[in-house]
Amino acid sequence: MKFELQKTDSQTKARAGKITTDHGEILTPIFMPVGTAGTVKGVHTKELLEEVEAQIILGNTYHLYLRPGLDILEKAGGLHKFNGWDKPILTDSGGYQVFSLKEIRKITEEGVYFNSHIDGSKHLFTPEYVMDIQRVIGADIIMAFDECPPYPCDHEYARKSMHLTHRWLKRCVKRINETEPKYGHSQALFPIVQGSVFKDLRIQSAEFIASQDQPGNAIGGLSVGEPAEDMYEMLEIVNGILPESKPRYLMGVGTPENILEGIALGTDMFDCVMPTRNARNGMLFTTQGIINIRNKKWEDDFSPIDQELGGYVSTFYSKAYLKHLNKCQEMLAAQIASVHNLRFYLWLVGEARNHILAGDFAEWKPLAIKKLMQRL
Amino acid sequence: MKFELQKTDSQTKARAGKITTDHGEILTPIFMPVGTAGTVKGVHTKELLEEVEAQIILGNTYHLYLRPGLDILEKAGGLHKFNGWDKPILTDSGGYQVFSLKEIRKITEEGVYFNSHIDGSKHLFTPEYVMDIQRVIGADIIMAFDECPPYPCDHEYARKSMHLTHRWLKRCVKRINETEPKYGHSQALFPIVQGSVFKDLRIQSAEFIASQDQPGNAIGGLSVGEPAEDMYEMLEIVNGILPESKPRYLMGVGTPENILEGIALGTDMFDCVMPTRNARNGMLFTTQGIINIRNKKWEDDFSPIDQELGGYVSTFYSKAYLKHLNKCQEMLAAQIASVHNLRFYLWLVGEARNHILAGDFAEWKPLAIKKLMQRL
Repeated sequence: MKFELQKTDSQTKARAGKITTDHGEILTPIFMPVGTAGTVKGVHTKELLEEVEAQIILGNTYHLYLRPGLDILEKAGGLHKFNGWDKPILTDSGGYQVFSLKEIRKITEEGVYFNSHIDGSKHLFTPEYVMDIQRVIGADIIMAFDECPPYPCDHEYARKSMHLTHRWLKRCVKRINETEPKYGHSQALFPIVQGSVFKDLRIQSAEFIASQDQPGNAIGGLSVGEPAEDMYEMLEIVNGILPESKPRYLMGVGTPENILEGIALGTDMFDCVMPTRNARNGMLFTTQGIINIRNKKWEDDFSPIDQELGGYVSTFYSKAYLKHLNKCQEMLAAQIASVHNLRFYLWLVGEARNHILAGDFAEWKPLAIKKLMQRL
Repeated sequence: MKFELQKTDSQTKARAGKITTDHGEILTPIFMPVGTAGTVKGVHTKELLEEVEAQIILGNTYHLYLRPGLDILEKAGGLHKFNGWDKPILTDSGGYQVFSLKEIRKITEEGVYFNSHIDGSKHLFTPEYVMDIQRVIGADIIMAFDECPPYPCDHEYARKSMHLTHRWLKRCVKRINETEPKYGHSQALFPIVQGSVFKDLRIQSAEFIASQDQPGNAIGGLSVGEPAEDMYEMLEIVNGILPESKPRYLMGVGTPENILEGIALGTDMFDCVMPTRNARNGMLFTTQGIINIRNKKWEDDFSPIDQELGGYVSTFYSKAYLKHLNKCQEMLAAQIASVHNLRFYLWLVGEARNHILAGDFAEWKPLAIKKLMQRL
């Protein structure tokens, strides 16, 4: 994996860059649609390419490990072959999902014991095993196994958790160095900065993560309930330490505003379930602002969902028709809104990139946030 | 509406023809995907055109009347404008749906009183009102308001019901003759033959329906639980009476076998929820036979769903991937299977047509039924 820093904004920390993987290039800043179980919910692979114009998608190690399982994934020749997506894939480490299973997991130095949410079966994720799993999945970018502490948590818990994450990282790096990719394409490991909302811990963690000298770095444990200001403050500290020459990935973020602020603070990669999850609930992000399609005002608005955004789904279907489908709980409502919202997110980061390259990102950002975050 | 009979098979009653509407041509025999609430469940309009290659779709008067309602449909300029499907549309009369509401409807000479299944609100469908509703929906082919008797029912019930359907038909014809289409394209009324599984009634009904001299004719009240042999027997009797110069539409049928037998008996048009409903349950009709994707045998079958059928969905996705999506209850499973099954149904009637035109339909039919109905 190669990262080329193409331009850094003069007024903010925003950057435009290019990541090159064996499955193709990714222009940054980038948003990565979440494909939990090897599918972005409600979206055909063809639509991801042609409508959403996604450049990289996410898979969840925890979900893929349980279903279809490693045996099927290996027989298929990896996730790219299994789901037919032949552009870059990033997999999370399963850490976040496993820690969400509050009642049915136990954290030890060795790793995490947990019960499957599907059938209650018992499993153990160690840093080594999670690396092996991601080798089998065959993602282009694989994430270190970390502990994501809850919010709020006290300094003592956050400190211990951070050190555990760091010890686990060393084991991840060792395992990756001792093993080979399975399908002929290279796999880059991204370690994850933790430290909750404590400045001293975030500094310590960012320094440790940077010292591991991996091809890219991630910031975890944010957007877990803390105020946005805290998130931005941590991000500023961490991005000031993580090397400029490598991509920075803010995990699980966020709203269009969060993403633009994250970009301004020097972040290059984002992922979030918000565009698809909110789509299924009838919330649409558009170039003109936010639409709740359940609102009665849309029932006789026969204008396209978002003419300016372009693409089939956003310009072919009307707001009134989408409102009708949503009211009738028709699958097509979720399909349309999911494709639309993802296209919007890719458009958003593309616009940010264009403005970074044009040199007017700092002026554009507040106007964009005001327009895009208003409720229509 | 115009119907051109292009060829009649020499060994069976099968026919190839062409229906011309103001929204384009329909080559018969044809299968019509069901778009209950103005959407074929899980299928984008673009997919209906490009993947399914549908020539005409169905809408349900009962559902569209309740949601989005006549006000919205009229403001939109009819269903074609509302859902963006600008090829032919046929609407049923709502009779079948209303009669399914067993506990909450009352049949009188005037019409049917019923309570909405959504909010319990009270409504009255009369033959005249149902014609007015279909004028507002703007379908190219509109169905007469009939009573669909349950199966089994006694001769006395079926006889009285048939006569009620005939009296209602006269009122439908009168209303249609007294009113104009709303959106500039013509609308053809199809009356419906009833009579349950009683030969004398079916003869009487077919003669009455034929005498009304409408642009096409339909056969209702079949595929409601009776043995397939009874259905075929009734169909043979009725098709022997309905004029050759007009299309014959067998409502709500059926399996691939039912459709081929129906074609052999001189039927031109079919509709059924089976391809989409069964798709959502993981049952796929393929050119090689029937697949239950829930079966364990598919979990490592990485071959395309149906290479021979062609189209993106059937050749891009593997059986193993579809099985995985189905197991995870991912929306995409229903989306893929729905597009696939509908494409199969359109392929099926297209093949039948090709063999009618080629003169070997009678030889092809039993081999096709054997192959297509086998469980893989």
